[in-house]
Amino acid sequence: METIYDYELEFKVRDYECDLQGVVNNSVYQNYLEHTRHEFLDTIGLNFTELFEKGIMAVVARADMQYKYPLRSNDKFVVKLRCEHKGVKYMFYQDIYRLPDEKLCLKGVITSTTLINGRLGICQEIVDALAAQKK
Amino acid sequence: METIYDYELEFKVRDYECDLQGVVNNSVYQNYLEHTRHEFLDTIGLNFTELFEKGIMAVVARADMQYKYPLRSNDKFVVKLRCEHKGVKYMFYQDIYRLPDEKLCLKGVITSTTLINGRLGICQEIVDALAAQKK
Amino acid sequence: METIYDYELEFKVRDYECDLQGVVNNSVYQNYLEHTRHEFLDTIGLNFTELFEKGIMAVVARADMQYKYPLRSNDKFVVKLRCEHKGVKYMFYQDIYRLPDEKLCLKGVITSTTLINGRLGICQEIVDALAAQKK
Amino acid sequence: METIYDYELEFKVRDYECDLQGVVNNSVYQNYLEHTRHEFLDTIGLNFTELFEKGIMAVVARADMQYKYPLRSNDKFVVKLRCEHKGVKYMFYQDIYRLPDEKLCLKGVITSTTLINGRLGICQEIVDALAAQKK
Repeated sequence: METIYDYELEFKVRDYECDLQGVVNNSVYQNYLEHTRHEFLDTIGLNFTELFEKGIMAVVARADMQYKYPLRSNDKFVVKLRCEHKGVKYMFYQDIYRLPDEKLCLKGVITSTTLINGRLGICQEIVDALAAQKK
Repeated sequence: METIYDYELEFKVRDYECDLQGVVNNSVYQNYLEHTRHEFLDTIGLNFTELFEKGIMAVVARADMQYKYPLRSNDKFVVKLRCEHKGVKYMFYQDIYRLPDEKLCLKGVITSTTLINGRLGICQEIVDALAAQKK
Repeated sequence: METIYDYELEFKVRDYECDLQGVVNNSVYQNYLEHTRHEFLDTIGLNFTELFEKGIMAVVARADMQYKYPLRSNDKFVVKLRCEHKGVKYMFYQDIYRLPDEKLCLKGVITSTTLINGRLGICQEIVDALAAQKK
Repeated sequence: METIYDYELEFKVRDYECDLQGVVNNSVYQNYLEHTRHEFLDTIGLNFTELFEKGIMAVVARADMQYKYPLRSNDKFVVKLRCEHKGVKYMFYQDIYRLPDEKLCLKGVITSTTLINGRLGICQEIVDALAAQKK
């Protein structure tokens, strides 16, 4: 059964992201995932920086990434994302596929939560926006 | 029961590692973990770059990190590491504690493996060096 | 008098590129400039990684950047580039403008040269490709 | 005539800082320079983050770096710094030497200034602290 994604964003590897093994450094994939989450939130009306300025801090509680195949210099790829809201958690299932052959490069599960003025809490604005985009 | 670590390395947060939330960006912790692994390997006689030049590529298959408490500008911290060899896998249990209060900031499990001339394989040099340091 | 540029590339700021001052960290602009140079070279048939594999190492001898106005989270911008070949040097004049208002954010001069098998030299392949695109 | 430096800080190259050419990526040197400036300021009683929270934003107006010799994986090095105050400018002369052979790797001139509540101005606290350390 195929995963239904909520959002996808295309990128191209930049040479400074590659390390001395000639592949994208492992930590850089987290940058790709973060940027995709923020762009996704933006498309549903939630701006990460604006939320932060309102005292709502979206934070990553856990990042679990399986590295399946390395991206290299010049590679194009897409980050696909599905988001599920569960209590105080927002689960982002994020997978990276090389383009154009759609080879799976990374499978990630990013667990986020929100701190409201420093305390764990549910941000109704986020919950509503996520629910609205599922329709 | 306390974890027995094989190695530890102290760091200080650098301001460029912090993001607009004023905390160390999530992806940067992976840099800390990687640098600690490479320094650990170096102390047991295994140089990451030299291995790479011999056709032995140590690669991360999975990175699972639980973010417990954020590091901030000026914080000092220690990355502690325990390594276990299981078949073609090397499991690195890596935890980050803020200094001097030893507050737990991150719990990570990094699963590595080795590609020898591009194929998954056991590198006896690595296995021996890891076994030797356990004694 | 307006500068005539040879190439331009559009970007969007990614949040992980911003530091605790809420602006893009100074070092990140060099990433933008480098990526733009490599993409420019690619469009004129010169691949940075392929050159490297042939023993031709394009290196930066000097980077001089004037920071005029900071880029922030969510900003779009364009890096414009003009290249001039002078002896063993390739001068890249690279300016960054915020979009859509074209506000000047950075003026940079990047002086590059080539090492051929480790020695300073002129790479005819690069010279020819640069000359061809000027026509 | 030898340069008299005000401050120096030792580092070791981390593998994730190296790019596919096997050397430290050009932009990373700016991280080294920034961290050294912030540590220097800290030793003379000026904390970058605290200044920022007080509305005093130290900003880089120009960075001019000459790359003399590349740093590689495993290299140790020292960043040496001399600071001169000239009107609204603070000039940081920052040179990087590989250790232990003191080979010159980079010569940099970083021109900084201060924005006080968003406007260019002289911060007496910084001027006094810089003057005090020269004695």
